[in-house]
Amino acid sequence: MDVLEAIKQRRSIRQFTEQAIKRELLEQILDAARWAPTAGNQQRWRFIVVTDPTVKEMVRKVSPGIFATPAAFIVICAEAAPDASDWDEWTYLADCAVAAQNIMLAAHALGLGSCVAISYARAAVQEILDIPDQVNPELIVTLGYPAEDPAPPPRLPLSQIVFADRYRKEW
Amino acid sequence: MDVLEAIKQRRSIRQFTEQAIKRELLEQILDAARWAPTAGNQQRWRFIVVTDPTVKEMVRKVSPGIFATPAAFIVICAEAAPDASDWDEWTYLADCAVAAQNIMLAAHALGLGSCVAISYARAAVQEILDIPDQVNPELIVTLGYPAEDPAPPPRLPLSQIVFADRYRKEW
Repeated sequence: MDVLEAIKQRRSIRQFTEQAIKRELLEQILDAARWAPTAGNQQRWRFIVVTDPTVKEMVRKVSPGIFATPAAFIVICAEAAPDASDWDEWTYLADCAVAAQNIMLAAHALGLGSCVAISYARAAVQEILDIPDQVNPELIVTLGYPAEDPAPPPRLPLSQIVFADRYRKEW
Repeated sequence: MDVLEAIKQRRSIRQFTEQAIKRELLEQILDAARWAPTAGNQQRWRFIVVTDPTVKEMVRKVSPGIFATPAAFIVICAEAAPDASDWDEWTYLADCAVAAQNIMLAAHALGLGSCVAISYARAAVQEILDIPDQVNPELIVTLGYPAEDPAPPPRLPLSQIVFADRYRKEW
């Protein structure tokens, strides 16, 4: 699938069929995540692939940002360096978000739907998934075969969000 | 260009030729940015396309993360809601990083190189580009025709960064 088409056609999918995702497809998606750039090539992201039905339900119950149970969640975590500063933590989040977009685009190319969730109880997710203290669950991406085909949500025109050389200067 | 190939073949490019980028290509790249998902479809990102040579030099001088002057910078900003919480600010950064990856993949598909920079003096960039107080320059993406062809940097194997259902549980 063409990359520019994938970028435009990808929709956030929140309703999924019960069909499981083959391990081979998950591997391709995780490989795409791994090729995302990271600050200083630190690669501090870690990916927990949750497919166990009980664990999925436990995560969903503490995640208002997840509307239905998908075939899998990928919980994107950042394993902080021992001396990580606030600035480092900030770069970890950016790195995890960049990897999340690779996951969503790869999923779309493979016929899967996905949605990134940021609204979940971090402490509870940390406990459910045995995530150690120095590791932060930064984002959750849901994955599954789509059970809906949503219309593209409205987007602001470029004239309203793009400027030339200075803020507010027409592009 | 195939999306999975683009994801794997994209490299961070830090040396550029002097060739300018046609407006039409920049529009395609910005359109790709605009189709990135945002929390609650808030679309709080704003994109300043810097091509003016004087402005580019000023930005570069305060940006240790930018190694050579590219044909263009895209400064990805977040225009905060008046009542934005720390949590909102956190989602703005994630949304900007997701859009940055769309920019980098679209650039690669169009024959351009790019690199995301996070190391720059925010206050100085804010002043140079007349960015108002409630707007944060979250990330800078450089763009230009590549003057280098770097080898892929090493990546951690999936066995080291992917877990199943719980942290540290082998996938």
